[in-house]
Amino acid sequence: MQQQISVITLGVTDIARSKRFYVDGFGWKPVLDMADIVFYQMNGLMLGTWLASALQEDSKRPLAAGPGRFSIAHNVKSAADVQPTLDRLVQFGGKLLRAADAPPHGGVRGYVADPDDHTWEVAFNPAWPISPEGYVTFGT
Amino acid sequence: MQQQISVITLGVTDIARSKRFYVDGFGWKPVLDMADIVFYQMNGLMLGTWLASALQEDSKRPLAAGPGRFSIAHNVKSAADVQPTLDRLVQFGGKLLRAADAPPHGGVRGYVADPDDHTWEVAFNPAWPISPEGYVTFGT
Repeated sequence: MQQQISVITLGVTDIARSKRFYVDGFGWKPVLDMADIVFYQMNGLMLGTWLASALQEDSKRPLAAGPGRFSIAHNVKSAADVQPTLDRLVQFGGKLLRAADAPPHGGVRGYVADPDDHTWEVAFNPAWPISPEGYVTFGT
Repeated sequence: MQQQISVITLGVTDIARSKRFYVDGFGWKPVLDMADIVFYQMNGLMLGTWLASALQEDSKRPLAAGPGRFSIAHNVKSAADVQPTLDRLVQFGGKLLRAADAPPHGGVRGYVADPDDHTWEVAFNPAWPISPEGYVTFGT
C-alpha cells in the first residue's frame, strides 16, 4: 500500500479556542471552516480539528480526554526559530511542556500542548530537508 | 508559518508488534529501523513509532495509555478497497472498530485500532485527489 497519510484529525472541545491556537498561533489558514470541523491544507495531507464528540461517534469508541500517546512535530528552518515559535503558541492558548533545548540526536526542540492537550513538538532538524512546498524528507 | 507537519510520532509499547501492523499489515518500509524507534517516509512527512516511555520522557509529560482523542486516515483509491484494507490490518494485529460504510458526507470509511490503540481511519474520498507521489489535496 502507498506510504501515505491523508488526514490527522484532532478531537477538540471548543472550535473557537482551537482556531485561536492554529489560525492565530501557527498562522495557518483553514481550507474549510465550519462550526464543528476545520480543515487545514498541509504538506500533502490534511490537518482536521473536529468536535471530539463527533470523532468519538464516527470512530465508534470512547476517547479519553487528556494527552494521548502521540505527538505531532512542526519543524522550523533554524535553531533560533524554535523558542519564539513555542512562545507564540503559548501566547495563543498553548501550554509550554518543554522549553527549547538540544536532544542527543542533534538539532533543537521543545514541546507545547494545544488547548485540547494534544502534544506538539517544534523542532529544528538540520538533517531533514523541507522542500519549498513543505515536503519533508528523511535524512541522517 | 508554513502549513507543514514534519512528523507524527505514535507512542508504542512493543516495537515488534507495532512493526507487524505497519510493515506487514500496511506493507510500509521503514526508512530507519531501530530497537526503540522506527520511522516511515510518508507523503511529505514522517511517521514515527517510538517507545511510549521515551516519548513521555522527551515531551516531559505523562501520557495515558488507551485511545487518544485523534485519528489518522489512510485514503485508498476505490470504495472497494476499504474493507479489504481493514481486514488486512486486523489480520496483522489491528482491532476493527467500525466496518466500512458510507458517511453522510460521501465516500466510504471504516476504522481500525493499531496494537497500541491508536485510531486509524481507512477511507475512500472521491473529492480529495491523491497525486502519484501520494500528496493529498482538499477538494469538495
